[in-house]
Amino acid sequence: MLPKPQLYKRARKIKLLLMDVDGVLTDGRILYLPNPRGGFLETKGFFSRDGLGIKLVHKAGLKTGIISGRASPIVEFRAKELGLHFVQQGSVEKVEPYERILHAAAVREDEVCYIGDDIVDLPILRRVGLAIGVGDGSAELRKVVHYCTKARGGFGAVREAIELILEAQGKWEAIRKSPKFEVKG
Amino acid sequence: MLPKPQLYKRARKIKLLLMDVDGVLTDGRILYLPNPRGGFLETKGFFSRDGLGIKLVHKAGLKTGIISGRASPIVEFRAKELGLHFVQQGSVEKVEPYERILHAAAVREDEVCYIGDDIVDLPILRRVGLAIGVGDGSAELRKVVHYCTKARGGFGAVREAIELILEAQGKWEAIRKSPKFEVKG
Amino acid sequence: MLPKPQLYKRARKIKLLLMDVDGVLTDGRILYLPNPRGGFLETKGFFSRDGLGIKLVHKAGLKTGIISGRASPIVEFRAKELGLHFVQQGSVEKVEPYERILHAAAVREDEVCYIGDDIVDLPILRRVGLAIGVGDGSAELRKVVHYCTKARGGFGAVREAIELILEAQGKWEAIRKSPKFEVKG
Amino acid sequence: MLPKPQLYKRARKIKLLLMDVDGVLTDGRILYLPNPRGGFLETKGFFSRDGLGIKLVHKAGLKTGIISGRASPIVEFRAKELGLHFVQQGSVEKVEPYERILHAAAVREDEVCYIGDDIVDLPILRRVGLAIGVGDGSAELRKVVHYCTKARGGFGAVREAIELILEAQGKWEAIRKSPKFEVKG
Repeated sequence: MLPKPQLYKRARKIKLLLMDVDGVLTDGRILYLPNPRGGFLETKGFFSRDGLGIKLVHKAGLKTGIISGRASPIVEFRAKELGLHFVQQGSVEKVEPYERILHAAAVREDEVCYIGDDIVDLPILRRVGLAIGVGDGSAELRKVVHYCTKARGGFGAVREAIELILEAQGKWEAIRKSPKFEVKG
Repeated sequence: MLPKPQLYKRARKIKLLLMDVDGVLTDGRILYLPNPRGGFLETKGFFSRDGLGIKLVHKAGLKTGIISGRASPIVEFRAKELGLHFVQQGSVEKVEPYERILHAAAVREDEVCYIGDDIVDLPILRRVGLAIGVGDGSAELRKVVHYCTKARGGFGAVREAIELILEAQGKWEAIRKSPKFEVKG
Repeated sequence: MLPKPQLYKRARKIKLLLMDVDGVLTDGRILYLPNPRGGFLETKGFFSRDGLGIKLVHKAGLKTGIISGRASPIVEFRAKELGLHFVQQGSVEKVEPYERILHAAAVREDEVCYIGDDIVDLPILRRVGLAIGVGDGSAELRKVVHYCTKARGGFGAVREAIELILEAQGKWEAIRKSPKFEVKG
Repeated sequence: MLPKPQLYKRARKIKLLLMDVDGVLTDGRILYLPNPRGGFLETKGFFSRDGLGIKLVHKAGLKTGIISGRASPIVEFRAKELGLHFVQQGSVEKVEPYERILHAAAVREDEVCYIGDDIVDLPILRRVGLAIGVGDGSAELRKVVHYCTKARGGFGAVREAIELILEAQGKWEAIRKSPKFEVKG
């Protein structure tokens, strides 16, 4: 946990926002539904104010992506809806997919913000320029992250991180004041 | 945030109650389900005590409507079930649909109450006679709204706003005391 | 809200436990799902510890029933699963179905406990021997009920009411101590 | 509730972790969905950080199982996904399935940890080496269990119990520090 000036110094450099899915973009609950084609399919709840935050971060010129230990067609669907640039699912070991995204996005590690909730996120959190943990995440993260959100995962943690970055970059004030939003969807 | 006398003065004039959907009539969570016809369909949770509040506001002679940035057949279904008079979905830019409803309802702006949760609602909140924010909404709303509910979105924020309006209009006491409800459904 | 001795005096007489569904046996959220046969179907979340409480109350010889303003095949299904004796759905005006159950159960009004969450429940709450409101229900109920649960609707309010009744009737201790449960399902 | 040294002494012996499902691995809510093949099917929400905890406990060489009073194909599916070793569903009377697992796992009772939330769990909780109750469970459990989690059922109670066991066994530090997780899925 960093004091505000150092935190903002880190946040100012961010060009790529990476997020875990379960427990970060959701509250960690996984619901199983009967698949119309047989078997079961998992689903989860996404948060509307996080969704708007992601659209605003895109409008501000940042890129976004998810790295999830689980794999689900519904996450793929949500990611497409939000226009996320990078989607890596289905590997609990997250460093390899993280490095693939880093390469594809052509950014330096100090230009990356990662938001996680659990110890599988620690190897990435130790490397990125801005490491953020969700408010209700594993206690182990608090020793490593630069910022821990007040909001819980799935209930505004991602939005809080986005506002922090946009504020540090001097972009939030314009978004807030703009009487018209051109974002769509 | 206004003191009670000014708040009630504004509430007394209200003839039309407009609401955002995600984060206002729901807790902001969006759940994706497999669509029996293929692909995915979104759903969300609505709150029964909000539903009864909307029926009571209709009984009291007010009109109601929703303006949602998202578009979903399930919202359409819920709106029909509750008998909402105006439904505008699928445009993040909300001023245009707002003005369409204003025209169709033939009311003045000081006769409109709007309940929102996020910064896309600010342009409307700045115009209506009674601007209400949900208790867990974006902090930006607090600077603009006349009242911020104690209840969270999707868990009674709409009901709280409705009781405020009906109380200001001297209609709540009668509803509360009536031993028989004629509302149906 | 009654002091404990008067509350227990009322609870000792109870032979029939009646409950509202939305906001009482559930947390008030209504979720719409695509119906495989077309259109939409509503569902809601029931609480496992409430379910066990209802089985225990049956074991103790009491009868149970629900009176719901809404109508849903899923509530019918849950009621059958729990073995409820009386199910009345689909009428916001609840006095008529209440009187039908009263007649069918052949009990006096002071032998009935009713648990509600909203003002549509007031006409029944004013008549029954033991009137209970859920912890997060409408503030209007607090002026009428004999007891208000600490637990929220859908998260143990019904169970809390059941334990109160069984304790007052001297049946809880035996249930608690019994090393073997014969209840099934 | 035991002081830490005695609690850790018990936790050090654990080779088998048994859990109730509803209210322990879930928050107790049961949701009914239309079954594509007709009728209804129940589902519930599982927690991602509990899921990772179970994988870590497997990695540490412990065995796991569930004993549930209800029976549901979705629980079967989740149990298979997590690789649980023992699954006993559909009997409210839990002692018999518990003894079946005990026999199959070939462990002594002081090598078993059981996590429960309600009075049907008491007969097992009175026998196992480490008896744990979830933070929001029945008050009756507090008189019997060795430890009561801070976390609620379905929101980290199982994870908290697992960290307690692995810490007592001196295995948590290694897991926490390991920069690479080999667990899959």
